[in-house]
Amino acid sequence: MPQYTPPLRDMQFVLHEVLKVTDELKGCPRHAEVDAGTMNAVLEEGGKFASEMLFPLNLSGDREGCTHDKATHSVRTPKGFKEAYAKYVEGGWPALSVEPEFGGQGLPVVLNQCIYEMMNSANQAWTMYPGLSHGALECLHAHGTEAQKKTYLPKLTSGVWTGTMCLTESHCGTDLGLLRTKAEPVIGGEADGSYKLTGQKIFISAGEHDMAENIVHLVLARLPDAPQGSKGISLFAVPKFNVKADGSLGERNAIYCTGIEHKMGIHGNATAQLSLDGATGTLVGEPNKGLPAMFVMMNAARLGVGNQSLGLTEVAYQNAVAYAKDRRQMRALSGPKQPEQPADTIIVHPDVRKMLLTARAYAEGGRALAVYCALLIDKMIASDDEDERKEAGDLTALLTPIVKAFLTDNGWIATSHCMQVYGGHGYIAEWGMEQYVRDARINMIYEGTNTVQSLDLLGRKVLGDNGAKLKKFGKLVTEFIEEEGTNEAMQEFVNPLADLGDKVTKLTTELGMKAFGNADEVGAAAVDYLRVAGHLVFAYFWARMAKVALEKKEEQGEGCDPFYTAKLHTARFYFAKLLPETAGLIRSARAGLAPLMAMDEALF
Amino acid sequence: MPQYTPPLRDMQFVLHEVLKVTDELKGCPRHAEVDAGTMNAVLEEGGKFASEMLFPLNLSGDREGCTHDKATHSVRTPKGFKEAYAKYVEGGWPALSVEPEFGGQGLPVVLNQCIYEMMNSANQAWTMYPGLSHGALECLHAHGTEAQKKTYLPKLTSGVWTGTMCLTESHCGTDLGLLRTKAEPVIGGEADGSYKLTGQKIFISAGEHDMAENIVHLVLARLPDAPQGSKGISLFAVPKFNVKADGSLGERNAIYCTGIEHKMGIHGNATAQLSLDGATGTLVGEPNKGLPAMFVMMNAARLGVGNQSLGLTEVAYQNAVAYAKDRRQMRALSGPKQPEQPADTIIVHPDVRKMLLTARAYAEGGRALAVYCALLIDKMIASDDEDERKEAGDLTALLTPIVKAFLTDNGWIATSHCMQVYGGHGYIAEWGMEQYVRDARINMIYEGTNTVQSLDLLGRKVLGDNGAKLKKFGKLVTEFIEEEGTNEAMQEFVNPLADLGDKVTKLTTELGMKAFGNADEVGAAAVDYLRVAGHLVFAYFWARMAKVALEKKEEQGEGCDPFYTAKLHTARFYFAKLLPETAGLIRSARAGLAPLMAMDEALF
Repeated sequence: MPQYTPPLRDMQFVLHEVLKVTDELKGCPRHAEVDAGTMNAVLEEGGKFASEMLFPLNLSGDREGCTHDKATHSVRTPKGFKEAYAKYVEGGWPALSVEPEFGGQGLPVVLNQCIYEMMNSANQAWTMYPGLSHGALECLHAHGTEAQKKTYLPKLTSGVWTGTMCLTESHCGTDLGLLRTKAEPVIGGEADGSYKLTGQKIFISAGEHDMAENIVHLVLARLPDAPQGSKGISLFAVPKFNVKADGSLGERNAIYCTGIEHKMGIHGNATAQLSLDGATGTLVGEPNKGLPAMFVMMNAARLGVGNQSLGLTEVAYQNAVAYAKDRRQMRALSGPKQPEQPADTIIVHPDVRKMLLTARAYAEGGRALAVYCALLIDKMIASDDEDERKEAGDLTALLTPIVKAFLTDNGWIATSHCMQVYGGHGYIAEWGMEQYVRDARINMIYEGTNTVQSLDLLGRKVLGDNGAKLKKFGKLVTEFIEEEGTNEAMQEFVNPLADLGDKVTKLTTELGMKAFGNADEVGAAAVDYLRVAGHLVFAYFWARMAKVALEKKEEQGEGCDPFYTAKLHTARFYFAKLLPETAGLIRSARAGLAPLMAMDEALF
Repeated sequence: MPQYTPPLRDMQFVLHEVLKVTDELKGCPRHAEVDAGTMNAVLEEGGKFASEMLFPLNLSGDREGCTHDKATHSVRTPKGFKEAYAKYVEGGWPALSVEPEFGGQGLPVVLNQCIYEMMNSANQAWTMYPGLSHGALECLHAHGTEAQKKTYLPKLTSGVWTGTMCLTESHCGTDLGLLRTKAEPVIGGEADGSYKLTGQKIFISAGEHDMAENIVHLVLARLPDAPQGSKGISLFAVPKFNVKADGSLGERNAIYCTGIEHKMGIHGNATAQLSLDGATGTLVGEPNKGLPAMFVMMNAARLGVGNQSLGLTEVAYQNAVAYAKDRRQMRALSGPKQPEQPADTIIVHPDVRKMLLTARAYAEGGRALAVYCALLIDKMIASDDEDERKEAGDLTALLTPIVKAFLTDNGWIATSHCMQVYGGHGYIAEWGMEQYVRDARINMIYEGTNTVQSLDLLGRKVLGDNGAKLKKFGKLVTEFIEEEGTNEAMQEFVNPLADLGDKVTKLTTELGMKAFGNADEVGAAAVDYLRVAGHLVFAYFWARMAKVALEKKEEQGEGCDPFYTAKLHTARFYFAKLLPETAGLIRSARAGLAPLMAMDEALF
């Protein structure tokens, strides 16, 4: 019953009209020749794969879930998942934006971003299987030995094997310094130089399944005599099947799935408990430097999680709109709008529109931000200008926690609104809306809870370098405001953007001063601060999008593509109805630490 | 693994110290002799029943769900539900606050309110079975014939039979004027004077089950030649088993459960599709006056739904606190708080406290408001002073949509926060936290969506009588502010309360003027307005609670009961961190209709 249409037009708008990615990529020799036509053709194909292959498996995958067989430690994924994955590999999708060195197609990350948004819209649980492979691949590319690269990268690139990240243990998730899994060096014999890993991991997404020949687990563990805490953690590659010298699969490695979790959502993805019973692994990167190495993967994953909620926001919006145009209930308060019918369609009711437009503004704003970040990553990886690489790296560092937390909080709000549009039917499984809400909820938790993201933003990224990274983003905002300073039609967007920019600057300074006195002030304000910063970023992109829409309307006159009219209305809605949230958030952030800490723990 | 302790101390605080209910009930002859000791004893017993009998069935009831047997049209409730219901009836709980005329114990509604809060904390899905009977009982009491009262009320009072409300059909929920179920009068024969009902109802909570001997369905249907729309709807009592003249059960009536829904939550409650195939019913009240008659039941149900989320907020809070005091993860940013341990308990982190205190402030504020409303209902029913009855009725009318929508929105926020405190474990079913979120979600939808509540508040209750009812509540606020005008210690609470009161007055006037020009302005602002009004009501009760706490601290000095210290801290938290939300809401409300309606429907 649910439906999904890939938002190709809006992706093209963001890519080509707002961000002008083909121009921006001219500084990346590898991408200098990529043209819009090629990009659009890839997007169209990707959209077909998502909507025709993955989307029909979403409801059924949720209902069926994964099945764990204790005897064989195997996991059966829902009906159709395996076959869809085979098509995915066959289509060459895993290799899309991987560097050509190991068999990748070397296309820009911005494309992969859009393909993943569509796959997340279609089926988040399924998309997590290939999704985690990208991070594993990047991590091995950055930190692996030549042998590891040769062994793993071609297979991860083609998607014949998948990857995981094994961090969490039952007693530690956020605080990885507490982890206990051990790695003992093997000295002598055939496995000389490798390690035997022993321990228990939990919450390993895509940790076991029947979709790929092999699974490459990237596992955090402690070497003997490693320093305590997070400085004593090393990273290991631990394949499900050992790999022979010729690259073929050897014997089963001693890393076993001992159970899968029963969860609120993403039922189609196996969340595995893994037992390492002396499993053979090889060290990735330096001893005791596992956490920084893993951060390559975690940063990619954080952007990926924001993208999951972006996908859910879009698909929930599309369905809620269709329902609101079809369902008839009551009359408009201002009088019947469809008097020939027994009742008006519910899209005539202002609050139904408010819920729909909230989802729409969050989807379209999120898309602009997410593609922008992907473009920064393209520059980080492939620009021939060191300054540009550095600049892109700094902006990515600043924006990553915002993409992760702001987009997932927005996804939670938006999917819940879209479900509400359905009334009672929204609560019923067969309509598919409640699944979006359940699936969206995990995105606020994993890859660092949204509280952790907010501490990363305010504590590390903003205050940690005295606002240098924030000023880089602020400069983009200021330049845009100055450029549009004399453009009358843009003032309705530029003024609130400038106003919020000033407020963020003041708030940042105030919080910095407070944190100087007591570091816990950061923790008290961080979540409110991230949401305010998220709105600043959205206001910037909405203003940029409005600018393009205004230009096109001017250009095209009477017969203007209604796409631009819709874009302008959505921009106005964003500034009128969503941005005002910042007023309360700033007040709450400024209220500081005392109201949180005054009460003795025993009184809770 | 989850736990629940009845919040008896806080209930006693609200009942006896803040609202002074035994004094307030002196004007109700029936309750004039009720003393605090009796009330506390009943609460203690009720708390035991909830925590010991119902709470252990909550997780298992969710996992097992209800089972529908197509062949017999029967529904099996989860293991233990039936036995718990038998104990409930045996304990006399259904009769607690029912009037003695039909076997009730005649105790005040404030007691029943608290008992129900605890049952909802323990098991919302179970509590919905007896919960709906109360509304059916009240509706028949108000509108039934003597024969109907004699037939149904004693059995509903004792709980041997349960009741339902059958409104929704697949094409209409909010808009009952569209309903199609038909009622044909039976003329002559044994059933002379009764009606044959034919149609399909959906979403009937507790619509079929194995817990009671009989189910009394109150069904909305159309008489032949009834006017179109909501003025042509009549109400009928349709028992599952026909009742013989001697009160014993006769043959099975033709109202059958044809299926139950698969839902996001409340799995333990059967959400029935009912088919009426010429079922025998009797008219309740006047022909074509079914909707106003049903409103007796709906108003009670709306308060009951708010109470469901209050219960979930409390139990989610209790569990999140226990987890936050036990789980160790990271160090406080200001330095280790428990240096002898490998990490600090997460309750040292400011944002964890913010999430906990949000739930706590919403639970305690919601409790004060809900008990206050129950006290108003006691006065409405039992006061010997007509003016008092009228005043209580007006305030109840005003506050009912606020209790329904504000408490359920808060419950959604709070249960989600409490789940977030658990990190990844919150998403896993066995910890029980994600169930609270799923169960809480329905409360924003049924018995009139929260949008419908907000239209009821702003359109009907506030603007509909030119603010007369709002002024009555405003008078209570103003009097309180004036009383505390010279109390230095109260200024931190009284000032923001007065400020918000002024803002609500201004906003109401502004919206009233706008609505005069275009009635859709009401729909554009209503949801924001209700949330602002909810905060005004909470600010009033939090200020009153703070006043009592301050007095007690003054009175008791050094050895003061720490309960009052905690109450004061929670009040300060509420004013510092939650009330500020109103700043954004007021801006959004004032942004008006245009940003919602400007976009053509085709462009969505």
